[in-house]
Amino acid sequence: FRRTQSLHGPSPVTTFGPKACMLKNPKAVMHIQDPASQRLTWNKPPKSVLVIKKIQDVSLLQPFKELCIFLTEQKKMIVYVERKVLEDPAIANDESFVAVKKNFCTFREDFDDISNRVDFIICLGGDGTLLYASSLFQESVPPVMAFHLGSLGFLTPFNFDTYQSQVTQVIEGNAAIILRSRLKVKVVKESREKTKTKDKNLIITNGEAEATRKTMQYQVLNEVVVDRGPSSYLSNVDLFLDGHLITTVQGDGVIVSTPTGSTAYAVAAGASMIHPNVPAILITPICPHSLSFRPIVVPAGVELKIMLSREARNNAWVSFDGRKRQEIGHGDSITITTSCFPVPSICFRDPVNDWFESLAQCLHWNVRKKQSHLSSEEEEEEF
Amino acid sequence: FRRTQSLHGPSPVTTFGPKACMLKNPKAVMHIQDPASQRLTWNKPPKSVLVIKKIQDVSLLQPFKELCIFLTEQKKMIVYVERKVLEDPAIANDESFVAVKKNFCTFREDFDDISNRVDFIICLGGDGTLLYASSLFQESVPPVMAFHLGSLGFLTPFNFDTYQSQVTQVIEGNAAIILRSRLKVKVVKESREKTKTKDKNLIITNGEAEATRKTMQYQVLNEVVVDRGPSSYLSNVDLFLDGHLITTVQGDGVIVSTPTGSTAYAVAAGASMIHPNVPAILITPICPHSLSFRPIVVPAGVELKIMLSREARNNAWVSFDGRKRQEIGHGDSITITTSCFPVPSICFRDPVNDWFESLAQCLHWNVRKKQSHLSSEEEEEEF
Amino acid sequence: FRRTQSLHGPSPVTTFGPKACMLKNPKAVMHIQDPASQRLTWNKPPKSVLVIKKIQDVSLLQPFKELCIFLTEQKKMIVYVERKVLEDPAIANDESFVAVKKNFCTFREDFDDISNRVDFIICLGGDGTLLYASSLFQESVPPVMAFHLGSLGFLTPFNFDTYQSQVTQVIEGNAAIILRSRLKVKVVKESREKTKTKDKNLIITNGEAEATRKTMQYQVLNEVVVDRGPSSYLSNVDLFLDGHLITTVQGDGVIVSTPTGSTAYAVAAGASMIHPNVPAILITPICPHSLSFRPIVVPAGVELKIMLSREARNNAWVSFDGRKRQEIGHGDSITITTSCFPVPSICFRDPVNDWFESLAQCLHWNVRKKQSHLSSEEEEEEF
Amino acid sequence: FRRTQSLHGPSPVTTFGPKACMLKNPKAVMHIQDPASQRLTWNKPPKSVLVIKKIQDVSLLQPFKELCIFLTEQKKMIVYVERKVLEDPAIANDESFVAVKKNFCTFREDFDDISNRVDFIICLGGDGTLLYASSLFQESVPPVMAFHLGSLGFLTPFNFDTYQSQVTQVIEGNAAIILRSRLKVKVVKESREKTKTKDKNLIITNGEAEATRKTMQYQVLNEVVVDRGPSSYLSNVDLFLDGHLITTVQGDGVIVSTPTGSTAYAVAAGASMIHPNVPAILITPICPHSLSFRPIVVPAGVELKIMLSREARNNAWVSFDGRKRQEIGHGDSITITTSCFPVPSICFRDPVNDWFESLAQCLHWNVRKKQSHLSSEEEEEEF
Repeated sequence: FRRTQSLHGPSPVTTFGPKACMLKNPKAVMHIQDPASQRLTWNKPPKSVLVIKKIQDVSLLQPFKELCIFLTEQKKMIVYVERKVLEDPAIANDESFVAVKKNFCTFREDFDDISNRVDFIICLGGDGTLLYASSLFQESVPPVMAFHLGSLGFLTPFNFDTYQSQVTQVIEGNAAIILRSRLKVKVVKESREKTKTKDKNLIITNGEAEATRKTMQYQVLNEVVVDRGPSSYLSNVDLFLDGHLITTVQGDGVIVSTPTGSTAYAVAAGASMIHPNVPAILITPICPHSLSFRPIVVPAGVELKIMLSREARNNAWVSFDGRKRQEIGHGDSITITTSCFPVPSICFRDPVNDWFESLAQCLHWNVRKKQSHLSSEEEEEEF
Repeated sequence: FRRTQSLHGPSPVTTFGPKACMLKNPKAVMHIQDPASQRLTWNKPPKSVLVIKKIQDVSLLQPFKELCIFLTEQKKMIVYVERKVLEDPAIANDESFVAVKKNFCTFREDFDDISNRVDFIICLGGDGTLLYASSLFQESVPPVMAFHLGSLGFLTPFNFDTYQSQVTQVIEGNAAIILRSRLKVKVVKESREKTKTKDKNLIITNGEAEATRKTMQYQVLNEVVVDRGPSSYLSNVDLFLDGHLITTVQGDGVIVSTPTGSTAYAVAAGASMIHPNVPAILITPICPHSLSFRPIVVPAGVELKIMLSREARNNAWVSFDGRKRQEIGHGDSITITTSCFPVPSICFRDPVNDWFESLAQCLHWNVRKKQSHLSSEEEEEEF
Repeated sequence: FRRTQSLHGPSPVTTFGPKACMLKNPKAVMHIQDPASQRLTWNKPPKSVLVIKKIQDVSLLQPFKELCIFLTEQKKMIVYVERKVLEDPAIANDESFVAVKKNFCTFREDFDDISNRVDFIICLGGDGTLLYASSLFQESVPPVMAFHLGSLGFLTPFNFDTYQSQVTQVIEGNAAIILRSRLKVKVVKESREKTKTKDKNLIITNGEAEATRKTMQYQVLNEVVVDRGPSSYLSNVDLFLDGHLITTVQGDGVIVSTPTGSTAYAVAAGASMIHPNVPAILITPICPHSLSFRPIVVPAGVELKIMLSREARNNAWVSFDGRKRQEIGHGDSITITTSCFPVPSICFRDPVNDWFESLAQCLHWNVRKKQSHLSSEEEEEEF
Repeated sequence: FRRTQSLHGPSPVTTFGPKACMLKNPKAVMHIQDPASQRLTWNKPPKSVLVIKKIQDVSLLQPFKELCIFLTEQKKMIVYVERKVLEDPAIANDESFVAVKKNFCTFREDFDDISNRVDFIICLGGDGTLLYASSLFQESVPPVMAFHLGSLGFLTPFNFDTYQSQVTQVIEGNAAIILRSRLKVKVVKESREKTKTKDKNLIITNGEAEATRKTMQYQVLNEVVVDRGPSSYLSNVDLFLDGHLITTVQGDGVIVSTPTGSTAYAVAAGASMIHPNVPAILITPICPHSLSFRPIVVPAGVELKIMLSREARNNAWVSFDGRKRQEIGHGDSITITTSCFPVPSICFRDPVNDWFESLAQCLHWNVRKKQSHLSSEEEEEEF
């Protein structure tokens, strides 16, 4: 099947009737490669590969070892593995594996930065392995190839059975990719701990107010969740879009998702599902107080900001792809935009087929029992 | 407020780790003007203006006359009006209006083609006026400025009170626009009436099979609806995407919407609401038999096709922006893609503010009663 | 498992603190047999059995014949069958069946009243067979035993494989039953056809106003649906409860369901599912214009009335269990209350187990793929 | 308006066709007073009244004082007030109030049991005051009259403006009441703290296993919520009904509500709203993983049990009307049935009108903007 138009949609005609047209503004023009035609290529042959394995899953041990042997011995690649993976007794005590792992490069999360040393990533396990891989690369992400062992995941399209030929093809540069957009999240926190010392220093130092702030930044593949945490009270947060207060969320919380994340927590909270090639951000309230608070989909380029409402009686909690959970108090802010560092995820077939396959497999989307009956309507004369 | 990035989202970085990058394919690159910076300009001053008035609404008569006098006498424009608007007795019998309307150009829907003669469109009334305007222009659409009289509509952002200055500004070329994407819909019908003669002619004429087909084309601003029509039976239609069968819809029907249409019928059927600048198509089942059949949002560039399922026991019905309702039988097909002829709709403020304003006004989106209580959770100690 | 309290719920204590209590009102006391203990008994041995078979389903022919032979020859019962069932060529031309069907009593729907001649009903096929059985008995309904052939239905709990022992047990009076409440619906139509002659007759005849009304009554097992029929316009109907206007429904329509009907059309329109032993009526809007129009569950004893709103621009359509579809104009009314003639449906196990079994089988209710992941949240440390 | 049938619904006819009927079982018959006719009466004139005031709300101070003066001086009643209400400086320091409060009976929550000393309860404030009142009475609850000050609540139907005549009427025994069912909840916890000593004692003491369990009981007016608490992991709990495993809830949690609670947290999580006179229990998943996990309504008489699933990786948290939040570990159980101690809540008008009034006021249920348009469908010819 050959596409006759871009997956993104056709360029709109910009003359409107006989006399009007769009004002040209060359500075504001974007150049976008058709998502349907996005393919991987290598500037130089990949030499290093990061292998991520879901831990505490015995069924993955054998595939992991096989894969590592294949990569080191046949493909002559340098394998990067997190140190704690090798500390698993089943691996640590496997004498036959000693020779193999001798050549591994190991690293520790939050200690060792491998972001510029890895050419290629292979994931073994569930969708969480890809979220973890994403978290390791706060800027450019190497191509990711993700294998599910048991059942297909949204982010793990490859079956392990034929891993050798599949990996070989990718290394040779023969692969369709989908750029999964991420969210760039900036959390600014007022350092309440220092409030007391602050008064003392205030006279001496200019910019002290600035100095007592703490800023953190995250790249998020699925979603940012702001919720009530352990509290029984409703959370109460203000949502700003491009600097304007859009609405106040009163309820269990709010989810800001990428299209990739639309099939994760957001769909459970009632959102529609968005194909990862749609440039958009999805905002979904969690159990909102207001019955009319439907999820909304906004353009990828907006800047969102979330802060506690003035009337909020308790703090909120935020997490990023389910990690780094932390409390948010009055004055703190969470700023969210689409990142320019997507995750280049290697497709099993193509972005469209892979997505519909995962909807059916992971969410039973419209999987029906052919013979069943909704109502008598089907049956008027033929019951 | 100045945007620092495109509303569409940032261009993704296309190098992935130290060695990988996206394969360049210059033919598949699109050039997109940032939606946030889209403004109207005129090659030549507009001379002709089509005025569309909701009929059977007495409250619109006076504004309509005022506007026409303003346009003809002060702006020296040629006013186009549909003939049946002038046949309204309140206008036909108004002697003071005779001189004004003498200079009007009149036309009849489906008889007179005015698509190349109108420089500018002004709508008075509800969202339906804009849908009607859209239906008159199957290709390029002149800029549309839409006034609501009573309450704000999704497609009618302007208040009539200050129409003179507002219209003047637009004519002078000072206006933000939003390109509302439309769907190009092709309906192919097997001419069942000719089936009997077909056999006879089959020997003689080549291409006869082709000749017995009837093809219609529509430009749709809100949505294509396929439903069970007057039947009590469930409808049963197959949905294809880029030539592959994606799913079968069993239920009251299915809605294929533009983002503009997401706040119309689709939201009533449970969909999330999509900002009109998101390049996407929304597919929403109507009362689906399957509980897991959630709405989906797909990239604007896909080609959808809807056909009756083989097992369907009754025909379906299709309508386009609520018009041209017709029956669809076995073998007929409805093909839907994003059109390259959007409706350039003039913004009151800007695409983002106008949209959130209309969500609040038209759908009471998250409009809350501040004092009310969801549950006791709010109250643990302070009931 | 033995219940220690009524399925209906405990009788509330009616003294409130040291000095208050409920005012006794013996006339307003109801006596309700615990639904969990409802069992069938026979005053006299059943002699006549109505067999209802889904037509146009070849797979049912053999079971139907077997069952009829078993009932006539072994159980010595008189079998009632609708005439059109026997007109099916596969039955009409089966010479081996001639002797059996010679002894059948046949009837035609809407012509022959069998409501006082049938002791027992057996259904073969889908849920529609039970809806059809219900429609034949406008007052007391004989016990119904319903077999599914392929897949379990909400109303057809029995598997045909062991039909002989199952039927024998029921005939011997050994069966739990569930009383499925029905709705009593009265439609009053103004006879608009006679309006012209009415003026002429008005002087002569008293009660003429009455005479020009047409009243119909229906017993409904699943639901009454009021919708927009073939129209593209929204329907606009007023909903009254015990004589008070409760709300106006603007949308595709409204469904008034029994708990039995909650798992049919209502669930597709977004309602919660109600166990058939809950004495309630479910009101569900179909694609309502208003985002806050959530379905409601009201006590079984209320009287609902539906009429076209004054501002409605087009007629509505009503159907009863998907049948008898008819137009409703201005001034017509549909009055709905819980009927005192339920359908006594024989349970396969008991009312609670049968219901949960059918939720899983028919609606895949919360049928999950154990291994799949909602989001990264599951995975914080163990991806 | 006079009801012609019970609000509960008509007693079903229990003969089924010519020969069948329901097996009589006098022991399993319940006698239920028609909810529509339930009225309050006094065995003796009420002498003591508990006044509950939402704390930290200045606007309530003046009404509270007025009411107390009215009750003590004019009605000669003994006023019970919680001690911390009087500790509010605005009351403690009000010298004009000293004489009045001298005669109050004060109590402290969880220390003083007033459950047999109060004849009547008056609430001032939001719905939380009634939930608090409910929590004070674990068995029979005195009649409750609840005033809202600002805006109507679900549980606070009375306007304070005419409080004198309203209170007088109730004291004189002239009041319709609605019995709001409560849930009786039993939490059984394995005392994990004692596990170590348990081994040692096991030989010596019989019944020790029993002794290490801790049982708590609660009466709940709105809902029991089981959720993931501060954890980012999904909760994973098993739901049993009458001893059978019905389903496993994987998601943010599950809500078990009374009909009264259906309009609180449950509706925010997507449930239908149930009138408080329907004898039922509502089970609503919170953001369930499975798209098909719709809320269900079961008969009031069932017994539910919730336990952590075997595969659950983290503990769950439970709360009761938003209070007494506590952790639930493996082996702990939460058993829920309908209580026989309802809250007798005094109606402003009657159970039906009060409910629909609160739906509109508190949830904007189907409150519509008359002029707005869902879609073009309304407009075919008349845009």
